Amino acid sequence: MIAAESARPFKTIGLIGRLGSDKVADSLRRLVTYLRHHDYKVLVEDRTATMIPDHGQPETTRRVLGELCDLVIVVGGDGSLLGAARALCRSGTLILGVNRGRLGFLTDISPDELETRVGEVLAGDFEVEERFLLDAVLYRNGVAVGSGDALNEVVVHPGKAVRMIEFELFVDGRFVYSQRSDGLIVATPTGSTAYALSGGGPIMHPKLDVITLVPMFPHTLSSRPIVIDAASEIRIHIGDTNHAYPHISCDGQTRAVAKPDDVLVITRKPARVQLVHPLGHNFFDVLRSKLGWSHRLGD
Amino acid sequence: MIAAESARPFKTIGLIGRLGSDKVADSLRRLVTYLRHHDYKVLVEDRTATMIPDHGQPETTRRVLGELCDLVIVVGGDGSLLGAARALCRSGTLILGVNRGRLGFLTDISPDELETRVGEVLAGDFEVEERFLLDAVLYRNGVAVGSGDALNEVVVHPGKAVRMIEFELFVDGRFVYSQRSDGLIVATPTGSTAYALSGGGPIMHPKLDVITLVPMFPHTLSSRPIVIDAASEIRIHIGDTNHAYPHISCDGQTRAVAKPDDVLVITRKPARVQLVHPLGHNFFDVLRSKLGWSHRLGD
Amino acid sequence: MIAAESARPFKTIGLIGRLGSDKVADSLRRLVTYLRHHDYKVLVEDRTATMIPDHGQPETTRRVLGELCDLVIVVGGDGSLLGAARALCRSGTLILGVNRGRLGFLTDISPDELETRVGEVLAGDFEVEERFLLDAVLYRNGVAVGSGDALNEVVVHPGKAVRMIEFELFVDGRFVYSQRSDGLIVATPTGSTAYALSGGGPIMHPKLDVITLVPMFPHTLSSRPIVIDAASEIRIHIGDTNHAYPHISCDGQTRAVAKPDDVLVITRKPARVQLVHPLGHNFFDVLRSKLGWSHRLGD
Amino acid sequence: MIAAESARPFKTIGLIGRLGSDKVADSLRRLVTYLRHHDYKVLVEDRTATMIPDHGQPETTRRVLGELCDLVIVVGGDGSLLGAARALCRSGTLILGVNRGRLGFLTDISPDELETRVGEVLAGDFEVEERFLLDAVLYRNGVAVGSGDALNEVVVHPGKAVRMIEFELFVDGRFVYSQRSDGLIVATPTGSTAYALSGGGPIMHPKLDVITLVPMFPHTLSSRPIVIDAASEIRIHIGDTNHAYPHISCDGQTRAVAKPDDVLVITRKPARVQLVHPLGHNFFDVLRSKLGWSHRLGD
Repeated sequence: MIAAESARPFKTIGLIGRLGSDKVADSLRRLVTYLRHHDYKVLVEDRTATMIPDHGQPETTRRVLGELCDLVIVVGGDGSLLGAARALCRSGTLILGVNRGRLGFLTDISPDELETRVGEVLAGDFEVEERFLLDAVLYRNGVAVGSGDALNEVVVHPGKAVRMIEFELFVDGRFVYSQRSDGLIVATPTGSTAYALSGGGPIMHPKLDVITLVPMFPHTLSSRPIVIDAASEIRIHIGDTNHAYPHISCDGQTRAVAKPDDVLVITRKPARVQLVHPLGHNFFDVLRSKLGWSHRLGD
Repeated sequence: MIAAESARPFKTIGLIGRLGSDKVADSLRRLVTYLRHHDYKVLVEDRTATMIPDHGQPETTRRVLGELCDLVIVVGGDGSLLGAARALCRSGTLILGVNRGRLGFLTDISPDELETRVGEVLAGDFEVEERFLLDAVLYRNGVAVGSGDALNEVVVHPGKAVRMIEFELFVDGRFVYSQRSDGLIVATPTGSTAYALSGGGPIMHPKLDVITLVPMFPHTLSSRPIVIDAASEIRIHIGDTNHAYPHISCDGQTRAVAKPDDVLVITRKPARVQLVHPLGHNFFDVLRSKLGWSHRLGD
Repeated sequence: MIAAESARPFKTIGLIGRLGSDKVADSLRRLVTYLRHHDYKVLVEDRTATMIPDHGQPETTRRVLGELCDLVIVVGGDGSLLGAARALCRSGTLILGVNRGRLGFLTDISPDELETRVGEVLAGDFEVEERFLLDAVLYRNGVAVGSGDALNEVVVHPGKAVRMIEFELFVDGRFVYSQRSDGLIVATPTGSTAYALSGGGPIMHPKLDVITLVPMFPHTLSSRPIVIDAASEIRIHIGDTNHAYPHISCDGQTRAVAKPDDVLVITRKPARVQLVHPLGHNFFDVLRSKLGWSHRLGD
Repeated sequence: MIAAESARPFKTIGLIGRLGSDKVADSLRRLVTYLRHHDYKVLVEDRTATMIPDHGQPETTRRVLGELCDLVIVVGGDGSLLGAARALCRSGTLILGVNRGRLGFLTDISPDELETRVGEVLAGDFEVEERFLLDAVLYRNGVAVGSGDALNEVVVHPGKAVRMIEFELFVDGRFVYSQRSDGLIVATPTGSTAYALSGGGPIMHPKLDVITLVPMFPHTLSSRPIVIDAASEIRIHIGDTNHAYPHISCDGQTRAVAKPDDVLVITRKPARVQLVHPLGHNFFDVLRSKLGWSHRLGD
């Protein structure tokens, strides 16, 4: 994967940054300078451009960015990368994440080594890791009335907290259980270290093709997280006796509001996110650092 | 505690029932008949009265019921008893719970043994168990802007689920931690077998004078339920960077909506609920039955 | 998969039963009668034979049973099937489990429907489900000093409980963490509903090719179950400061005792267990029944 | 509580240290020098004395230390203090813990501030915190056959791990449940931040008079930690079908081995440990530091 200078893997680089942070703006400016100095064509996402007014490069939307760029660099937290990944997964564009201070699970280049690590990636020293996303479609009387996609998780929950919802869960057409709870988290391996982890779900290695179903505050104490094949069709039948109108959120944003008897269908999206890591990236190193796990014995 | 017929412990009995259930209406009618037959004075709560139009007894509000009755019988689920208990705790009226089918933690007389068990209680064969409640007051710039009381739990949570809130927790003026989470459950022993249990809190014996603080989906994985003295003052300082406006709910009902920098103060209410049980009531028997725990070895 | 009578899928049937149970002996006798009546050749495992002295069929060891039989029927609990599965996996013999009263995860024919369901299977109405096993080898100075295989789980634990052990965990040569705990459970999907579930591990669908690593009472509170690819090599380096001599158990039986600095290597066994189910078998139905989960709403 | 120099609260100081650590020996030598320089009478525990051969002070046993000293300083980890506390609780001697590097829950003076903080305590600037202990007695056919006491926890567990035990639990003569599990942890508030915490038990404020019962890997998934009054009599009836001989450990050390049908009775010890803290000691500060909880928002 190490490329000669003459065969540079990337020509056009897109830039996306988390809005409203001076640190992010600073990293973006350094990236523009560095990339232009090395004769890369640079495109800046239009909203991002408002943070660095004098950048002097063409501006465009996320979708167009995906079509024109070989690589998009996202500066911000894991949340920023989630948004970019959903927008860019259709075009299959490579995505590189730069965090804005704290190490992230998805943004693993830190600002103080920005030029060095980005330089390595541009020279071809990188690994590509595919991550799958979820598609969620809400049906009412057989007609789709809402939808969303998620890299981390789809959550069914009461719009207002502290109110139980009732639903039935089916996997590949097979009835699993009916449940009274605060909701259900349907998480990808990527999402297994995010919200699902706080809810007691297992950590799942990112390369696995599995999904975890984590009940939220279930009334039935024997309810536990279940890990299933990511190729499964997950169907959630909203109970017809709910007082609350359950919300469907994708990566933390409400995408649809269900009525009694609605059916939510969750499947794996065909398109995948192409995540770029500098060589030597190790999921377990990130875990250990983020969760404060112990280092080698004797250290 | 066994009273002679000539020294009947109760003279005036109040009746409260869960609205909208035929089974409850049926139990209420049987109670009116039984109590009148035995020459008790019967008062029916005004809203309850709408369910049994021909009852022929005086009607009044919950508060007045508390002042005039020696005993109030609540027919319904644990939820119905929570509401009655909050209304009646000030007057110290004895409360007896009749469930409408499924055994409850608080309503431990089942409909099929209604007259027998109520008869025993009226004859003086009963135990009184005191349960404490919580007072929650929300302060903004030092002024109280909302309040509520709870027999089960006070919950601080984002109004919309799947959105973290930030707050600082103090116990008796001592800083405990700052937390990013879906919220915090502050539960009494009574509430320890309700919502707090789904959230991973411990079961606490009802006679204990303690409170448990259960973090909801905490960002910090080492956060655990903490049990403290019920005489403690619990102060929750809402972070000033919250995007959500945290809601304060008491026994499942929203009582106040906080703004950044508000302070929620939770203390034990001076007045206590006086819960009546037939003799032989045993908390562990109820637990075992409700949670499906194993019976004696060899059974 | 429905076979004509003329093309019976099985000719020679082996019988294994849990020792010491009258109920098991009774089921075995009924099976011998039924199978002989339908002209199957029947072989009885030698130890099992001691329970039904007058059975009149040839007796042999488990290993030979695996070589000579097309199908082995195991009567007992899940524990009995685990033992038979480990012995028979090399020969790839089909295995059918008959439970002796209570429904099991692996033994899903109940005694009262013995002849009917076994008859269906013999007529060809069945599904075969493959389950993988784990191989555990303990190395001392590079030399194998002990080994075992497991269908449910390999556990590293102090020989005496209530004594922490220290170890380092590597997955595919990558360092995961060092841990001080009561031990580590390495469970297959089959084992995910057994010991690992009590320890807080997730339920994993049996068809998945994954392994879960469940820390036992970890000192580090942020330690969580991790799900990894079953093709991974798991290496556990026993710390050199351990006071206890950690035991390695496979499916609940101690197979080796480690010394400080020993290395335990766990991999997926190439051979797989071939589990036979009557048609219509559904993992989620078994789960719901065993864990007391709720049925359809409205039931 | 601030004492004048003329009214020094202590005259005779005992010293106990964790064996086998150079750091502990160093702290002990500094303490002898400091205490002798300020004219305190110093007694060194006989085993401790072997670590600092030239100390020049009288030596005696722990028990005698308790009778002759006003204050005993324990240098080591929480484990060292547990042992000293059990030995000294009968005499009611005040105990001060000095940790040997890492902050402990019980040993809250760090070596680098040794003379300063010990000086403050000797000058009378200290708080005394009482901690209760548990008494465990094992009965066979009504006769006591073993016993132990514990400041942290009593654990009933199979002598060999990975083997379920069966027992019945009674609290104040009332049947709670029968359980199949890896065992049961009976923890004091002091022990709630030790082994019981790894097992999922709640954190309990040290001043509470409560006990938590934490099931270990329970077969019944709805089993949860239960908090009860510390004045309760806890009775554990060992099942008569156990294959393992359950061990009873107190603060991590095996004190008795049970046979089928034995009865273990656990009660609160009348004598209490008198723990000395420098002024300003705060349980929540220690928790936050030990568990890595978040500091004030904005920090």
